[in-house]
Amino acid sequence: MRPPHTAKRGSFLTVQDAGERALIARIAALTGPAPDFLTIGIGDDAAVLDSPVREQVVLTCDAQVEGVHFRRDWTDPESIGRKAVAVNLSDLAAMGAAPHVILLSLCLPASLTIEDFDALAAGAIAEARGAGAVLAGGNITRSSGPLVVDVTAMGRVHRRRVMTRAGARPGDELWVTGSVGAAAAGFAWLEAGRDRHESPEAAECVARFERPAARIRLGRRVAGSRSATAAMDLSDGLADAARQVAEASGCGVTLESDAIPVHPSAGLVLLALGRDPIAAALSGGEDYELLFAVPAKRRRAFQSAVSRAGGPQAVCVGRLTADRTQFELVTGAGREPLPAGFQHLVTSRI
Amino acid sequence: MRPPHTAKRGSFLTVQDAGERALIARIAALTGPAPDFLTIGIGDDAAVLDSPVREQVVLTCDAQVEGVHFRRDWTDPESIGRKAVAVNLSDLAAMGAAPHVILLSLCLPASLTIEDFDALAAGAIAEARGAGAVLAGGNITRSSGPLVVDVTAMGRVHRRRVMTRAGARPGDELWVTGSVGAAAAGFAWLEAGRDRHESPEAAECVARFERPAARIRLGRRVAGSRSATAAMDLSDGLADAARQVAEASGCGVTLESDAIPVHPSAGLVLLALGRDPIAAALSGGEDYELLFAVPAKRRRAFQSAVSRAGGPQAVCVGRLTADRTQFELVTGAGREPLPAGFQHLVTSRI
Repeated sequence: MRPPHTAKRGSFLTVQDAGERALIARIAALTGPAPDFLTIGIGDDAAVLDSPVREQVVLTCDAQVEGVHFRRDWTDPESIGRKAVAVNLSDLAAMGAAPHVILLSLCLPASLTIEDFDALAAGAIAEARGAGAVLAGGNITRSSGPLVVDVTAMGRVHRRRVMTRAGARPGDELWVTGSVGAAAAGFAWLEAGRDRHESPEAAECVARFERPAARIRLGRRVAGSRSATAAMDLSDGLADAARQVAEASGCGVTLESDAIPVHPSAGLVLLALGRDPIAAALSGGEDYELLFAVPAKRRRAFQSAVSRAGGPQAVCVGRLTADRTQFELVTGAGREPLPAGFQHLVTSRI
Repeated sequence: MRPPHTAKRGSFLTVQDAGERALIARIAALTGPAPDFLTIGIGDDAAVLDSPVREQVVLTCDAQVEGVHFRRDWTDPESIGRKAVAVNLSDLAAMGAAPHVILLSLCLPASLTIEDFDALAAGAIAEARGAGAVLAGGNITRSSGPLVVDVTAMGRVHRRRVMTRAGARPGDELWVTGSVGAAAAGFAWLEAGRDRHESPEAAECVARFERPAARIRLGRRVAGSRSATAAMDLSDGLADAARQVAEASGCGVTLESDAIPVHPSAGLVLLALGRDPIAAALSGGEDYELLFAVPAKRRRAFQSAVSRAGGPQAVCVGRLTADRTQFELVTGAGREPLPAGFQHLVTSRI
């Protein structure tokens, strides 16, 4: 849907020129009519919606900050908007929840062009819609610095299907969906000042970094099968996720280096940059795949649920152990400590 | 409750030094144990809570951005945290909703000290708790620029008690709670480089700017009495709120200049700065009082509800009219157009 044209449209260059009312009208036009359950949508002090019947409410928020998570000279605004929503949908997927509504909180530099604003909003709304969620409201404010796209996502889940980070037991296998390392490879490529069009592999990795796909259907299917004892998304890397599931569940963990499904293009791109693919796959964030703890006797039910989701497959990369102090990576050369993931402040869920 | 001490505490100076895990542990310690309805609180991919029974869900978010809404050399971090929550509670109050949970999304400059982080988080959590809401989760990320405190608030309200901006009719009276202009006066005083301790009136206005009180009980009482046909909070000023209620309800509006309850200290402070108190009361934002449209025959029920709330009283400042193009201010000198409020991008609800 195209944004509304106004009499002055030709003269609008930036969000500052347009003013708040015009920006909200553009978002409302992109969103379309509210569904029945959303009794008050865009344009009031708050959104009002029917409580999910016989389900629980799942709430998460995550901000994408210019200069920290994205650069506008690297990434087009539609992709920025899509990713800001996708990373929140990924959190819902990790809980087994169905996306329901999102709120969009935008801190906009006054110089942002209307065209970029429209593309960003359209990307966010399209990503939500593709996952069955509707934009219910939010907030627009000026930023004195970077562009900030903060998204709140609300989902729904049956009480008995919620997957948390806790709940896994020693002996449970750790399974990861799809492949890892491509987002880290794409980011490293851009950071090295290389052109994404230099090779198809580089282009593929950059696309994974800029447009992650939340594994919503897969998360829902696994939650419905009740085959996983714990789940988490890989926003901060595989090693971090394995460690967090282990810690929350009161376990230790060993990962098998050879079993880690490094994305084939990521391997090529990282080697071209002189980086170790396994290290990037373990510690690089932003893959937004899912990690599940699965008891051996539920393995077939888990695999069946993953297959029914119709997306990527999952592979077993290690297991939880009874020794709470054990955080190990098993390689061909022996055992080594699991990397710690991001050690300094980057981004983290409260 | 004090934040957890760690072995390294003495050496932690900034949030960058502390790292994300330590920051989340500090917030969790400030929050305390989760209530029964919050089945998954801080520390997972998302928060999970029971759906409100026989009520609707009310969702809003609002960001406070350093350099746009606050300055750290003016305002202490506890007040910044409190206000970031209060402005969201005010949106819930305007809908007639009871605060339920909040999410806290923080974009932190790496140089922010741990002491300031603790005070900001403590302020946000205390403000929420004082209104009956619990911190359920959120997100921490690094900021490449200003400190951003983005809050999502979820409330609950019975379907028949929701108050929106629409619903008012020609002839309905417009009532405003408490007094207006003090926040604008306090902001103007700080902006002029004056010391808040120069006079008790200045100190009072600065306090109103820095620590607004959301009119939650009042909003709930009026919603329960079903005496108001529309409601909105005064985040962007009285003139803007009156205009928005009128536009959403398909009406015009006239306000009586003499009836506007300008805060007494605001009058003195603004005159000392050479500003017009009425203009500041009309166009200055941040008062976070509530505006209600009330049919004359429901006036006594409305006043009774306001009294039962035990807070500030409300006064009638004008009425809605049938002429949708009429936006008038009646003064001693005649009639003039109602000021437009903020014309450029500052902050606005989607």
